[in-house]
Amino acid sequence: MDFFFKPDGIAVLGATINPGKGGFHILDNVISGYNGRVFPVNPKYQTILEHTCYPDLQSIPEDFDLVIYFIPARFLPDTIKICAEKKVKGIIIESAGFAEASENGMQLQRECVALAKENNIRLWGPNCMGLIDSHLRHVFSFMYWDAWKKIMKPGNISLIVQSGMLSAGFLMMILERGGIQISKVCSIGNKCDVNESDLLEYLILDPDTDVIGMYLESIVDGRRFMELAKSTKKPIVILKGGRNRYGAGAAISHTASLAGDNNIIQSAFRQAGIIPVYDAHELMDVLSGFAKVKEYKPDGGTAILTFSGGGGIITADFLEDFGLNLAKLNNKTISMIQDVFPAWMKPSNPVDIWPAIELNGPKKVLPATLAALMNDPNVDSLIVHFFGLTVDREQLAGLVRLREEFKKPVIVWLVGFGEAYSEMKKEFYAFDLPVFTEMGRCVSVLGALKRHYSKKGSVE
Amino acid sequence: MDFFFKPDGIAVLGATINPGKGGFHILDNVISGYNGRVFPVNPKYQTILEHTCYPDLQSIPEDFDLVIYFIPARFLPDTIKICAEKKVKGIIIESAGFAEASENGMQLQRECVALAKENNIRLWGPNCMGLIDSHLRHVFSFMYWDAWKKIMKPGNISLIVQSGMLSAGFLMMILERGGIQISKVCSIGNKCDVNESDLLEYLILDPDTDVIGMYLESIVDGRRFMELAKSTKKPIVILKGGRNRYGAGAAISHTASLAGDNNIIQSAFRQAGIIPVYDAHELMDVLSGFAKVKEYKPDGGTAILTFSGGGGIITADFLEDFGLNLAKLNNKTISMIQDVFPAWMKPSNPVDIWPAIELNGPKKVLPATLAALMNDPNVDSLIVHFFGLTVDREQLAGLVRLREEFKKPVIVWLVGFGEAYSEMKKEFYAFDLPVFTEMGRCVSVLGALKRHYSKKGSVE
Repeated sequence: MDFFFKPDGIAVLGATINPGKGGFHILDNVISGYNGRVFPVNPKYQTILEHTCYPDLQSIPEDFDLVIYFIPARFLPDTIKICAEKKVKGIIIESAGFAEASENGMQLQRECVALAKENNIRLWGPNCMGLIDSHLRHVFSFMYWDAWKKIMKPGNISLIVQSGMLSAGFLMMILERGGIQISKVCSIGNKCDVNESDLLEYLILDPDTDVIGMYLESIVDGRRFMELAKSTKKPIVILKGGRNRYGAGAAISHTASLAGDNNIIQSAFRQAGIIPVYDAHELMDVLSGFAKVKEYKPDGGTAILTFSGGGGIITADFLEDFGLNLAKLNNKTISMIQDVFPAWMKPSNPVDIWPAIELNGPKKVLPATLAALMNDPNVDSLIVHFFGLTVDREQLAGLVRLREEFKKPVIVWLVGFGEAYSEMKKEFYAFDLPVFTEMGRCVSVLGALKRHYSKKGSVE
Repeated sequence: MDFFFKPDGIAVLGATINPGKGGFHILDNVISGYNGRVFPVNPKYQTILEHTCYPDLQSIPEDFDLVIYFIPARFLPDTIKICAEKKVKGIIIESAGFAEASENGMQLQRECVALAKENNIRLWGPNCMGLIDSHLRHVFSFMYWDAWKKIMKPGNISLIVQSGMLSAGFLMMILERGGIQISKVCSIGNKCDVNESDLLEYLILDPDTDVIGMYLESIVDGRRFMELAKSTKKPIVILKGGRNRYGAGAAISHTASLAGDNNIIQSAFRQAGIIPVYDAHELMDVLSGFAKVKEYKPDGGTAILTFSGGGGIITADFLEDFGLNLAKLNNKTISMIQDVFPAWMKPSNPVDIWPAIELNGPKKVLPATLAALMNDPNVDSLIVHFFGLTVDREQLAGLVRLREEFKKPVIVWLVGFGEAYSEMKKEFYAFDLPVFTEMGRCVSVLGALKRHYSKKGSVE
């Protein structure tokens, strides 16, 4: 599979000088990161983006591993034959118009798969957005937004997706907001040959990947897939499209996928230790939780530190929903917290520090309370509600030291606004603290961490 | 109840010159919006914020309707007696240390309620953040953030909350992000006298309130409350804290509330046509949906227009979860859309316009597709996924004209980034289009709209 991710030479079929077309962006993206030889192919041009352009594949005077295909579907069979002569190892087919489009397209796709197999060529796609490797800065995709050149930094999360959005616009939005970085993104479309199992196997062995996320509309070889999932300690988080008749119907016209029986799939996920999610931001949030929290011994309960009694209660309600315990604080903790609390207020979990802050100020209250909670053997994890007026950099560093010392996950819900809010969020991210917008999401991510680490433990 | 919202004269007990204290902010907030007479009370000062300061209530030479109380709890009984002499009509008690704190506090609170009743004085709170009326610019609250002076504009959503956060920091964050404006906020804390039923009754009659949201930890007089809820066509959305043992335990120490049996409460909500929510942002999102969508005849299904096949499928899956139908497009619609689609792609719902945009550009594809969908009698509502590259102001105006013509709700999921994204969001808000961050939220809000308008119809 390495010839897809680290090919020795790439031909771009359908490269063009028109920035309104995907063929321009494939070439632009490839040459903006890839250091190897690149051969644009289009009979209309002599050069594109300062690269010699060839009228057809045959005219390229050298051998090369990979073709990125972005011309109409009907030319694919002939292309495969030429690729066989040129000893091409793989073709990433980003054009649409195959099995997802019509009976004819389905027939064409089948024919191409057979032809490629005969000639020992692997097909990626069709109807997909190719791949990204942020460590190598390889973007083999028609993605229009070139924001990746600025915002993409190497991370430890890899994605396998049957959705262009999750490998392009939406992904860029997520990366720009910060707090999440990726390793590889594999957009597999109709996955006529290379499928989620092939790539899962590859990513399980990939040293740059600690966490694996997927958006799938179908699972081609369920048995192999679940065996692979069971075999690894790397967390696998899956958003399955086509959970019911509406989504399943739509999946057929999107990637010609048969969604399968959702009850069976969800139960197989459970058995294989796969974490199911249901929305795109949720997928990214859970992945970012795993990317930042690399160990967790869920042998106690969760402490909630909040500036809002109401926020504490809403969060406590969610704990039970997501299979977590509310920690019973021990006496030492209560007496340590009582020292900074008003006399009339008996500390309990959730710990509402607002009245204490009114009395003693955040600089005294916050570090004392955090230390007491993290020290408590009944506490295995901490959800902290921060808000703009009560936290500074020094306090944040203190929290991170506590986290390192006690190895207990800390998840943050942040209230604030304006530029100060964005800036503060970046500080949290810099310390690898997961921050979420909704209180419920803080708890559901912690619940996912607990389920995973209870079952599989940490990666060695 | 008008003397709380529109009092003739206010005394602020516990006003101070120290901006680190709530007593400063109460006075500052009051005089920054309220045009009536204001009397700061504190024996330490001659004047505060250019207002004559009185050593005690007795020394104020005039009568006044309202006292805002922010001194220690133990002084309340004597204060009530003096208020009786001064013909004060109501006291907003923002101090804590009453029933939520201890047995003694509970006893003190009971004593005060009896005393106030004898003297025909209404008590608001204690342990609360008072009230806001954005139409009158009355902020009778110790809220520290004075961002309200800039960002608060009159709206049609009113809130009754047992949480300081939802009436202060979090509320300011929501207002600053845009897309939501409020009418009144009533923070009721321990609600020893004025309770959610009193205020619900008031808001049902309030011409400035179209939509009512609540965060409640208990419901004092369930029968009266549910009767009131049943009696109105105004949507009522409730986040109930203390849904289970964790939250219910915390509610006792927060506002001395007995949360009650959640199954009974949720079933009473259903019968009264109340919409339940579970998180703070969710509450605000559903409220903003109702504030913007004032009519909806849910007699068909939902159309999904998307730039992402995957996004369409995820959204379609959510429809069934939230009790909505996926519209079956009629033949006229399909043929209208086919005109701008590639020949290989048969239009179906969800309508994925990306391949059509690649072929014909957004300016041709988007208006044609929107018009076809809104015209379809099988379509009663529309969820649109927009993304940064495919929408401009003119197209947005066109969408809004279609919405006005066909009176079908349009809910937006927006992908984009950087400043362009925030700017675009503001454009959507300016057109009163609800925009949400998560696809699932778009659907759950539409589901709430459908349930409400099916049962209660529109407000006359």
